[in-house]
Amino acid sequence: MKPLILVTNDDGITSKGIRTLVEIMQTIGNVVVVAPNSPQSGMGHAITIGEPLRLYATHIFDGIDEYECSGTPADCVKLAKHYVLKDRKPDLVVSGINHGSNSSISVLYSGTMSAAIEAAIEGIPAIGFSLCDYTEDADFEHAVEPIAKITRAAIEHGIPKGIALNVNIPAKTTEPLKGILSCRQAKAKWLEKFDYRTDPNGRGYFWMAGDFINFDTEKEDTDVWALENNYISVVPCQYDLTEYEALDKLKTWNL
Amino acid sequence: MKPLILVTNDDGITSKGIRTLVEIMQTIGNVVVVAPNSPQSGMGHAITIGEPLRLYATHIFDGIDEYECSGTPADCVKLAKHYVLKDRKPDLVVSGINHGSNSSISVLYSGTMSAAIEAAIEGIPAIGFSLCDYTEDADFEHAVEPIAKITRAAIEHGIPKGIALNVNIPAKTTEPLKGILSCRQAKAKWLEKFDYRTDPNGRGYFWMAGDFINFDTEKEDTDVWALENNYISVVPCQYDLTEYEALDKLKTWNL
Repeated sequence: MKPLILVTNDDGITSKGIRTLVEIMQTIGNVVVVAPNSPQSGMGHAITIGEPLRLYATHIFDGIDEYECSGTPADCVKLAKHYVLKDRKPDLVVSGINHGSNSSISVLYSGTMSAAIEAAIEGIPAIGFSLCDYTEDADFEHAVEPIAKITRAAIEHGIPKGIALNVNIPAKTTEPLKGILSCRQAKAKWLEKFDYRTDPNGRGYFWMAGDFINFDTEKEDTDVWALENNYISVVPCQYDLTEYEALDKLKTWNL
Repeated sequence: MKPLILVTNDDGITSKGIRTLVEIMQTIGNVVVVAPNSPQSGMGHAITIGEPLRLYATHIFDGIDEYECSGTPADCVKLAKHYVLKDRKPDLVVSGINHGSNSSISVLYSGTMSAAIEAAIEGIPAIGFSLCDYTEDADFEHAVEPIAKITRAAIEHGIPKGIALNVNIPAKTTEPLKGILSCRQAKAKWLEKFDYRTDPNGRGYFWMAGDFINFDTEKEDTDVWALENNYISVVPCQYDLTEYEALDKLKTWNL
Protein backbone atom coordinates (compact mmCIF):
# COMPACT_ATOMS: atom_id res chain seq x y z
CA MET A 1 0.00 0.00 0.00
CA LYS A 2 1.26 3.48 -0.82
CA PRO A 3 2.25 5.62 2.17
CA LEU A 4 -0.07 8.44 3.26
CA ILE A 5 1.92 11.70 3.04
CA LEU A 6 0.75 14.98 4.56
CA VAL A 7 2.24 18.04 2.84
CA THR A 8 2.38 21.48 4.38
CA ASN A 9 4.63 24.57 4.30
CA ASP A 10 5.03 28.09 5.61
CA ASP A 11 5.07 30.12 2.40
CA GLY A 12 1.38 29.39 1.85
CA ILE A 13 -0.57 26.95 -0.30
CA THR A 14 -0.14 29.00 -3.50
CA SER A 15 3.67 29.07 -3.41
CA LYS A 16 5.85 27.45 -6.03
CA GLY A 17 7.76 25.41 -3.44
CA ILE A 18 4.76 23.47 -2.14
CA ARG A 19 3.63 22.74 -5.70
CA THR A 20 7.00 21.15 -6.43
CA LEU A 21 6.86 19.16 -3.19
CA VAL A 22 3.33 17.90 -3.93
CA GLU A 23 4.43 16.75 -7.39
CA ILE A 24 7.40 14.86 -5.92
CA MET A 25 5.29 13.23 -3.20
CA GLN A 26 2.64 12.14 -5.71
CA THR A 27 5.30 9.84 -7.24
CA ILE A 28 5.83 8.24 -3.82
CA GLY A 29 2.52 8.07 -1.96
CA ASN A 30 -1.03 9.25 -1.45
CA VAL A 31 -0.93 12.97 -0.76
CA VAL A 32 -3.10 15.19 1.44
CA VAL A 33 -2.30 18.92 1.64
CA VAL A 34 -3.14 21.18 4.60
CA ALA A 35 -1.22 24.44 4.28
CA PRO A 36 -1.51 28.08 5.38
CA ASN A 37 -3.67 30.44 3.30
CA SER A 38 -1.03 33.18 3.60
CA PRO A 39 2.75 33.43 4.03
CA GLN A 40 3.87 32.36 7.53
CA SER A 41 7.63 32.79 7.21
CA GLY A 42 9.41 33.37 10.50
CA MET A 43 6.46 32.07 12.52
CA GLY A 44 8.65 29.65 14.49
CA HIS A 45 6.61 27.20 16.51
CA ALA A 46 3.68 29.59 16.87
CA ILE A 47 0.19 28.19 17.37
CA THR A 48 -3.14 29.96 17.29
CA ILE A 49 -4.69 30.28 20.73
CA GLY A 50 -7.30 32.84 21.64
CA GLU A 51 -8.44 33.18 18.03
CA PRO A 52 -10.57 30.89 15.85
CA LEU A 53 -9.11 28.94 12.93
CA ARG A 54 -10.60 28.65 9.45
CA LEU A 55 -10.14 25.67 7.16
CA TYR A 56 -11.39 25.49 3.57
CA ALA A 57 -11.09 22.91 0.80
CA THR A 58 -9.11 24.18 -2.20
CA HIS A 59 -8.69 23.03 -5.81
CA ILE A 60 -5.16 24.01 -6.75
CA PHE A 61 -3.62 20.59 -7.29
CA ASP A 62 -4.83 17.66 -9.37
CA GLY A 63 -6.83 14.88 -7.77
CA ILE A 64 -5.82 15.21 -4.13
CA ASP A 65 -7.46 16.25 -0.88
CA GLU A 66 -6.25 19.77 -0.16
CA TYR A 67 -7.13 22.42 2.40
CA GLU A 68 -6.00 25.92 3.25
CA CYS A 69 -5.92 27.02 6.86
CA SER A 70 -5.86 30.49 8.43
CA GLY A 71 -3.33 29.35 11.04
CA THR A 72 0.38 28.70 11.36
CA PRO A 73 2.30 25.70 9.98
CA ALA A 74 2.08 24.00 13.40
CA ASP A 75 -1.70 24.63 13.42
CA CYS A 76 -1.93 22.99 9.97
CA VAL A 77 -0.34 19.77 11.26
CA LYS A 78 -2.58 19.75 14.33
CA LEU A 79 -5.75 20.36 12.29
CA ALA A 80 -4.70 17.79 9.70
CA LYS A 81 -4.06 15.12 12.31
CA HIS A 82 -7.09 15.69 14.49
CA TYR A 83 -9.69 16.86 11.99
CA VAL A 84 -8.86 16.34 8.30
CA LEU A 85 -7.26 12.88 8.59
CA LYS A 86 -9.17 11.82 11.71
CA ASP A 87 -8.38 8.13 12.18
CA ARG A 88 -5.81 7.93 9.37
CA LYS A 89 -2.33 8.54 10.77
CA PRO A 90 0.03 9.81 8.07
CA ASP A 91 3.13 7.71 7.38
CA LEU A 92 5.11 10.88 6.74
CA VAL A 93 4.75 14.65 7.06
CA VAL A 94 6.77 16.79 4.65
CA SER A 95 7.00 20.57 4.84
CA GLY A 96 8.24 23.01 2.22
CA ILE A 97 9.89 23.38 -0.13
CA ASN A 98 10.72 26.61 1.68
CA HIS A 99 11.77 29.61 -0.37
CA GLY A 100 14.92 30.33 1.65
CA SER A 101 17.43 28.62 3.92
CA ASN A 102 16.46 27.11 7.26
CA SER A 103 19.94 25.96 8.16
CA SER A 104 21.70 26.59 11.46
CA ILE A 105 19.96 28.94 13.93
CA SER A 106 17.23 29.72 11.38
CA VAL A 107 15.64 26.39 12.32
CA LEU A 108 14.28 28.12 15.45
CA TYR A 109 12.50 30.84 13.46
CA SER A 110 11.30 28.50 10.74
CA GLY A 111 7.63 27.78 10.21
CA THR A 112 8.66 25.05 7.77
CA MET A 113 10.59 23.17 10.43
CA SER A 114 8.04 23.84 13.18
CA ALA A 115 5.49 21.91 11.12
CA ALA A 116 7.94 19.01 10.84
CA ILE A 117 8.79 19.13 14.55
CA GLU A 118 5.10 19.28 15.43
CA ALA A 119 4.69 16.02 13.49
CA ALA A 120 7.70 14.52 15.32
CA ILE A 121 6.05 15.39 18.65
CA GLU A 122 3.04 13.41 17.42
CA GLY A 123 5.30 10.45 16.66
CA ILE A 124 5.03 10.89 12.89
CA PRO A 125 8.20 10.76 10.73
CA ALA A 126 8.76 14.23 9.31
CA ILE A 127 11.04 16.16 6.97
CA GLY A 128 11.32 19.88 6.30
CA PHE A 129 12.79 20.84 2.91
CA SER A 130 14.23 24.29 2.19
CA LEU A 131 15.96 25.77 -0.84
CA CYS A 132 18.59 28.45 -0.23
CA ASP A 133 16.86 30.81 -2.65
CA TYR A 134 14.45 33.40 -1.24
CA THR A 135 12.89 34.44 -4.56
CA GLU A 136 9.24 33.69 -5.32
CA ASP A 137 10.11 32.12 -8.68
CA ALA A 138 13.06 30.10 -7.33
CA ASP A 139 14.25 27.25 -9.57
CA PHE A 140 13.52 23.96 -7.75
CA GLU A 141 14.41 21.62 -10.63
CA HIS A 142 17.78 20.46 -9.28
CA ALA A 143 16.12 19.72 -5.90
CA VAL A 144 13.53 17.27 -7.23
CA GLU A 145 15.63 14.12 -7.52
CA PRO A 146 17.48 14.50 -4.18
CA ILE A 147 14.22 15.27 -2.34
CA ALA A 148 12.69 12.08 -3.76
CA LYS A 149 15.83 10.15 -2.80
CA ILE A 150 15.86 11.43 0.81
CA THR A 151 12.12 10.80 1.17
CA ARG A 152 12.39 7.21 -0.12
CA ALA A 153 15.38 6.58 2.17
CA ALA A 154 13.45 7.94 5.16
CA ILE A 155 10.51 5.63 4.40
CA GLU A 156 12.84 2.64 3.87
CA HIS A 157 15.12 3.12 6.92
CA GLY A 158 12.63 4.88 9.20
CA ILE A 159 13.37 8.20 10.88
CA PRO A 160 14.15 7.67 14.58
CA LYS A 161 11.14 8.42 16.82
CA GLY A 162 10.77 12.05 17.83
CA ILE A 163 13.15 13.30 15.13
CA ALA A 164 12.41 15.64 12.23
CA LEU A 165 14.94 16.01 9.43
CA ASN A 166 15.97 19.53 8.44
CA VAL A 167 17.00 19.31 4.77
CA ASN A 168 18.51 22.35 3.08
CA ILE A 169 19.39 22.46 -0.60
CA PRO A 170 21.82 24.96 -2.18
CA ALA A 171 20.39 27.41 -4.69
CA LYS A 172 20.81 26.38 -8.31
CA THR A 173 24.14 27.32 -9.85
CA THR A 174 25.96 26.26 -12.98
CA GLU A 175 27.75 23.56 -10.92
CA PRO A 176 25.92 20.30 -10.14
CA LEU A 177 25.26 19.46 -6.45
CA LYS A 178 28.10 17.43 -4.89
CA GLY A 179 25.91 15.14 -2.80
CA ILE A 180 24.02 14.86 0.50
CA LEU A 181 25.72 15.23 3.93
CA SER A 182 24.38 14.43 7.39
CA CYS A 183 25.35 17.38 9.57
CA ARG A 184 24.94 19.10 12.88
CA GLN A 185 23.35 22.53 13.26
CA ALA A 186 26.09 25.17 12.91
CA LYS A 187 26.62 27.57 15.82
CA ALA A 188 25.55 30.92 14.44
CA LYS A 189 23.26 33.87 14.91
CA TRP A 190 21.69 36.70 12.99
CA LEU A 191 23.11 40.15 13.58
CA GLU A 192 20.04 42.29 13.18
CA LYS A 193 19.98 45.71 11.61
CA PHE A 194 16.91 47.85 12.11
CA ASP A 195 16.15 50.30 9.34
CA TYR A 196 14.20 53.23 10.84
CA ARG A 197 11.76 55.04 8.55
CA THR A 198 8.90 57.51 8.90
CA ASP A 199 5.44 56.73 7.52
CA PRO A 200 3.30 59.29 5.60
CA ASN A 201 1.59 60.17 8.93
CA GLY A 202 4.90 61.10 10.53
CA ARG A 203 5.19 58.05 12.76
CA GLY A 204 8.32 55.96 12.91
CA TYR A 205 8.61 52.29 12.07
CA PHE A 206 11.36 49.70 11.66
CA TRP A 207 12.26 47.11 9.08
CA MET A 208 14.23 44.21 10.51
CA ALA A 209 17.08 42.95 8.38
CA GLY A 210 20.25 41.19 9.32
CA ASP A 211 23.50 39.48 8.50
CA PHE A 212 24.17 35.83 9.22
CA ILE A 213 27.16 35.28 11.53
CA ASN A 214 28.66 31.77 11.53
CA PHE A 215 30.73 30.94 14.63
CA ASP A 216 31.65 27.52 13.19
CA THR A 217 33.65 28.69 10.18
CA GLU A 218 36.52 26.22 10.69
CA LYS A 219 34.27 23.17 11.08
CA GLU A 220 33.35 20.83 8.22
CA ASP A 221 30.60 18.87 10.01
CA THR A 222 27.97 21.62 9.99
CA ASP A 223 24.98 22.33 7.75
CA VAL A 224 26.41 25.74 6.83
CA TRP A 225 29.69 24.20 5.64
CA ALA A 226 27.78 21.64 3.56
CA LEU A 227 25.65 24.32 1.88
CA GLU A 228 28.60 26.64 1.24
CA ASN A 229 30.34 23.74 -0.48
CA ASN A 230 27.33 22.87 -2.67
CA TYR A 231 26.19 19.81 -0.69
CA ILE A 232 22.63 19.22 0.54
CA SER A 233 22.57 19.23 4.37
CA VAL A 234 20.44 16.91 6.51
CA VAL A 235 20.24 17.68 10.26
CA PRO A 236 18.23 15.41 12.59
CA CYS A 237 16.31 17.73 14.97
CA GLN A 238 14.76 16.92 18.34
CA TYR A 239 12.53 18.93 20.66
CA ASP A 240 13.99 18.25 24.12
CA LEU A 241 15.65 21.58 24.87
CA THR A 242 17.15 20.37 28.17
CA GLU A 243 20.91 20.95 28.30
CA TYR A 244 22.00 18.12 30.59
CA GLU A 245 25.50 19.40 31.46
CA ALA A 246 24.04 22.70 32.62
CA LEU A 247 21.53 20.71 34.69
CA ASP A 248 24.41 19.26 36.73
CA LYS A 249 25.81 22.76 37.27
CA LEU A 250 22.43 24.13 38.38
CA LYS A 251 22.23 21.50 41.09
CA THR A 252 25.31 23.06 42.75
CA TRP A 253 23.50 26.39 43.15
CA ASN A 254 21.65 25.07 46.25
CA LEU A 255 18.42 26.80 45.35
CA MET B 1 27.39 48.73 39.87
CA LYS B 2 23.85 47.40 39.64
CA PRO B 3 23.23 44.94 36.81
CA LEU B 4 21.29 46.11 33.74
CA ILE B 5 18.19 43.93 33.44
CA LEU B 6 15.97 43.84 30.35
CA VAL B 7 12.39 42.74 31.11
CA THR B 8 9.97 41.43 28.49
CA ASN B 9 7.06 38.98 28.30
CA ASP B 10 4.47 37.52 25.95
CA ASP B 11 1.22 38.53 27.67
CA GLY B 12 1.83 42.16 26.78
CA ILE B 13 3.17 45.19 28.64
CA THR B 14 -0.10 45.83 30.51
CA SER B 15 -0.33 42.37 32.10
CA LYS B 16 -0.14 41.77 35.83
CA GLY B 17 2.72 39.29 35.46
CA ILE B 18 5.21 41.73 33.91
CA ARG B 19 4.34 44.35 36.53
CA THR B 20 5.27 41.87 39.28
CA LEU B 21 8.50 40.96 37.47
CA VAL B 22 9.48 44.62 37.01
CA GLU B 23 8.93 45.26 40.73
CA ILE B 24 11.12 42.28 41.67
CA MET B 25 13.87 43.28 39.24
CA GLN B 26 13.89 46.88 40.52
CA THR B 27 15.12 45.48 43.86
CA ILE B 28 18.04 43.81 42.05
CA GLY B 29 19.19 46.03 39.20
CA ASN B 30 18.54 48.82 36.73
CA VAL B 31 15.50 47.87 34.66
CA VAL B 32 14.60 48.53 31.02
CA VAL B 33 11.29 47.16 29.67
CA VAL B 34 10.62 46.33 26.01
CA ALA B 35 7.46 44.25 25.76
CA PRO B 36 4.72 43.49 23.24
CA ASN B 37 1.80 45.92 22.95
CA SER B 38 -0.66 43.01 22.74
CA PRO B 39 -0.88 39.41 23.98
CA GLN B 40 1.55 37.12 22.14
CA SER B 41 0.83 33.82 23.86
CA GLY B 42 1.66 30.76 21.80
CA MET B 43 3.88 32.74 19.44
CA GLY B 44 6.80 30.35 19.88
CA HIS B 45 9.99 31.70 18.37
CA ALA B 46 8.16 33.80 15.79
CA ILE B 47 9.82 36.94 14.43
CA THR B 48 8.36 39.68 12.27
CA ILE B 49 9.69 39.58 8.74
CA GLY B 50 7.93 41.14 5.78
CA GLU B 51 6.09 43.63 8.01
CA PRO B 52 7.29 46.78 9.75
CA LEU B 53 7.67 47.00 13.52
CA ARG B 54 6.47 49.84 15.75
CA LEU B 55 8.09 50.84 19.03
CA TYR B 56 6.72 53.49 21.40
CA ALA B 57 7.82 54.78 24.80
CA THR B 58 5.23 54.05 27.52
CA HIS B 59 4.65 55.38 31.04
CA ILE B 60 3.19 52.45 32.95
CA PHE B 61 5.93 51.84 35.49
CA ASP B 62 7.72 54.25 37.83
CA GLY B 63 11.00 55.78 36.82
CA ILE B 64 12.26 53.32 34.25
CA ASP B 65 12.85 53.25 30.51
CA GLU B 66 9.95 51.34 29.00
CA TYR B 67 8.75 50.64 25.47
CA GLU B 68 5.94 48.73 23.84
CA CYS B 69 6.54 46.97 20.54
CA SER B 70 4.13 45.73 17.88
CA GLY B 71 6.15 42.55 17.40
CA THR B 72 6.69 39.20 19.06
CA PRO B 73 8.67 38.54 22.26
CA ALA B 74 11.73 37.56 20.16
CA ASP B 75 11.36 40.84 18.21
CA CYS B 76 11.32 42.74 21.52
CA VAL B 77 14.67 41.27 22.54
CA LYS B 78 16.19 42.00 19.12
CA LEU B 79 14.91 45.60 19.08
CA ALA B 80 15.99 46.13 22.69
CA LYS B 81 19.50 44.89 22.02
CA HIS B 82 20.13 46.59 18.69
CA TYR B 83 18.11 49.80 19.05
CA VAL B 84 16.91 50.67 22.56
CA LEU B 85 20.04 49.65 24.47
CA LYS B 86 22.45 50.26 21.59
CA ASP B 87 25.92 49.89 23.11
CA ARG B 88 24.75 48.79 26.57
CA LYS B 89 24.64 44.99 26.73
CA PRO B 90 22.18 43.82 29.39
CA ASP B 91 23.60 41.65 32.18
CA LEU B 92 20.38 39.65 32.26
CA VAL B 93 17.16 39.26 30.27
CA VAL B 94 14.08 38.12 32.19
CA SER B 95 10.77 37.25 30.55
CA GLY B 96 7.35 36.85 32.19
CA ILE B 97 5.90 36.30 34.61
CA ASN B 98 3.78 34.32 32.19
CA HIS B 99 0.13 33.76 33.04
CA GLY B 100 0.20 29.99 32.53
CA SER B 101 2.62 27.06 32.56
CA ASN B 102 5.49 26.76 30.10
CA SER B 103 6.73 23.44 31.40
CA SER B 104 7.56 20.40 29.29
CA ILE B 105 6.61 20.54 25.59
CA SER B 106 4.93 23.95 26.08
CA VAL B 107 8.41 25.49 26.02
CA LEU B 108 8.32 25.13 22.21
CA TYR B 109 5.10 27.15 21.86
CA SER B 110 6.04 29.71 24.47
CA GLY B 111 6.65 33.33 23.57
CA THR B 112 7.97 33.86 27.10
CA MET B 113 10.71 31.30 26.62
CA SER B 114 11.47 32.32 23.02
CA ALA B 115 12.42 35.77 24.34
CA ALA B 116 14.77 34.14 26.86
CA ILE B 117 16.25 31.82 24.23
CA GLU B 118 16.70 34.75 21.85
CA ALA B 119 18.79 36.41 24.56
CA ALA B 120 20.79 33.19 25.07
CA ILE B 121 21.55 33.14 21.32
CA GLU B 122 22.95 36.66 21.80
CA GLY B 123 25.16 35.40 24.64
CA ILE B 124 23.09 37.16 27.33
CA PRO B 125 22.10 35.23 30.49
CA ALA B 126 18.33 34.79 30.43
CA ILE B 127 15.47 33.43 32.49
CA GLY B 128 11.81 32.88 31.59
CA PHE B 129 9.38 32.83 34.54
CA SER B 130 5.89 31.31 34.32
CA LEU B 131 3.15 30.79 36.88
CA CYS B 132 0.88 27.78 36.43
CA ASP B 133 -2.22 29.96 36.61
CA TYR B 134 -3.79 31.14 33.34
CA THR B 135 -6.12 33.76 34.86
CA GLU B 136 -5.58 37.47 34.17
CA ASP B 137 -5.69 38.32 37.88
CA ALA B 138 -3.45 35.43 38.95
CA ASP B 139 -1.94 35.74 42.43
CA PHE B 140 1.85 36.14 42.03
CA GLU B 141 2.61 36.92 45.69
CA HIS B 142 4.08 33.51 46.59
CA ALA B 143 6.33 33.70 43.49
CA VAL B 144 8.06 36.97 44.40
CA GLU B 145 10.64 35.68 46.89
CA PRO B 146 11.70 32.57 44.89
CA ILE B 147 11.98 34.61 41.66
CA ALA B 148 14.27 37.07 43.44
CA LYS B 149 16.28 34.16 44.88
CA ILE B 150 16.72 32.42 41.49
CA THR B 151 17.64 35.71 39.81
CA ARG B 152 20.26 36.56 42.44
CA ALA B 153 21.70 33.03 42.23
CA ALA B 154 21.88 33.29 38.41
CA ILE B 155 23.77 36.60 38.69
CA GLU B 156 26.09 35.21 41.39
CA HIS B 157 26.91 31.83 39.78
CA GLY B 158 26.48 32.82 36.13
CA ILE B 159 24.19 30.95 33.74
CA PRO B 160 26.27 28.78 31.36
CA LYS B 161 26.74 30.43 27.94
CA GLY B 162 23.95 29.78 25.45
CA ILE B 163 21.52 28.57 28.13
CA ALA B 164 18.17 30.08 29.13
CA LEU B 165 16.49 28.93 32.33
CA ASN B 166 12.84 27.88 32.11
CA VAL B 167 11.37 28.51 35.56
CA ASN B 168 7.81 27.39 36.31
CA ILE B 169 6.04 28.13 39.58
CA PRO B 170 3.00 26.22 40.85
CA ALA B 171 -0.24 28.19 41.20
CA LYS B 172 -0.94 29.47 44.69
CA THR B 173 -2.65 27.00 46.99
CA THR B 174 -3.17 26.84 50.75
CA GLU B 175 0.07 24.80 51.00
CA PRO B 176 3.44 26.62 50.93
CA LEU B 177 5.85 25.79 48.07
CA LYS B 178 8.20 22.90 48.93
CA GLY B 179 11.29 24.37 47.24
CA ILE B 180 13.10 24.69 43.92
CA LEU B 181 14.19 21.70 41.79
CA SER B 182 16.51 21.59 38.78
CA CYS B 183 14.78 19.34 36.25
CA ARG B 184 14.73 18.05 32.72
CA GLN B 185 11.91 18.80 30.27
CA ALA B 186 9.24 16.08 30.68
CA LYS B 187 8.36 14.03 27.60
CA ALA B 188 4.81 15.05 26.83
CA LYS B 189 2.48 16.43 24.20
CA TRP B 190 -0.82 18.22 23.86
CA LEU B 191 -3.73 16.14 22.58
CA GLU B 192 -5.68 18.73 20.64
CA LYS B 193 -9.43 18.91 20.43
CA PHE B 194 -10.96 21.12 17.77
CA ASP B 195 -14.35 22.56 18.63
CA TYR B 196 -16.21 23.23 15.34
CA ARG B 197 -18.72 26.09 15.33
CA THR B 198 -20.62 28.12 12.75
CA ASP B 199 -20.38 31.93 12.64
CA PRO B 200 -23.42 34.24 12.12
CA ASN B 201 -22.63 34.23 8.36
CA GLY B 202 -22.93 30.46 8.18
CA ARG B 203 -19.21 29.76 7.82
CA GLY B 204 -17.44 27.21 9.97
CA TYR B 205 -14.53 27.87 12.29
CA PHE B 206 -12.55 25.99 14.91
CA TRP B 207 -11.41 26.65 18.44
CA MET B 208 -8.29 24.74 19.37
CA ALA B 209 -8.23 23.28 22.85
CA GLY B 210 -6.36 20.33 24.24
CA ASP B 211 -5.38 18.04 27.05
CA PHE B 212 -1.82 17.70 28.31
CA ILE B 213 -0.48 14.14 28.04
CA ASN B 214 2.60 13.35 30.15
CA PHE B 215 4.61 10.31 28.95
CA ASP B 216 6.99 10.63 31.92
CA THR B 217 4.50 9.91 34.71
CA GLU B 218 6.81 7.51 36.59
CA LYS B 219 9.82 9.82 36.58
CA GLU B 220 10.71 12.21 39.43
CA ASP B 221 13.40 14.23 37.60
CA THR B 222 11.05 16.18 35.31
CA ASP B 223 9.57 19.66 35.48
CA VAL B 224 6.04 18.25 35.41
CA TRP B 225 6.73 16.05 38.44
CA ALA B 226 8.18 19.01 40.33
CA LEU B 227 5.16 21.21 39.60
CA GLU B 228 2.66 18.47 40.44
CA ASN B 229 4.40 18.09 43.78
CA ASN B 230 4.36 21.83 44.56
CA TYR B 231 8.02 22.50 43.74
CA ILE B 232 9.28 25.26 41.45
CA SER B 233 10.97 23.72 38.38
CA VAL B 234 14.11 25.09 36.70
CA VAL B 235 15.09 23.59 33.32
CA PRO B 236 18.24 24.76 31.52
CA CYS B 237 17.31 25.13 27.82
CA GLN B 238 19.60 25.23 24.80
CA TYR B 239 18.94 25.93 21.13
CA ASP B 240 21.02 23.32 19.31
CA LEU B 241 18.26 21.01 18.05
CA THR B 242 20.73 18.47 16.59
CA GLU B 243 20.10 14.94 17.89
CA TYR B 244 23.59 13.46 17.75
CA GLU B 245 22.63 9.77 18.08
CA ALA B 246 20.27 10.09 15.13
CA LEU B 247 23.08 11.77 13.22
CA ASP B 248 25.14 8.58 13.46
CA LYS B 249 22.17 6.55 12.19
CA LEU B 250 21.62 8.91 9.26
CA LYS B 251 25.19 8.36 8.12
CA THR B 252 24.37 4.69 7.51
CA TRP B 253 21.65 5.61 5.00
CA ASN B 254 24.28 6.17 2.27
CA LEU B 255 22.50 9.16 0.82
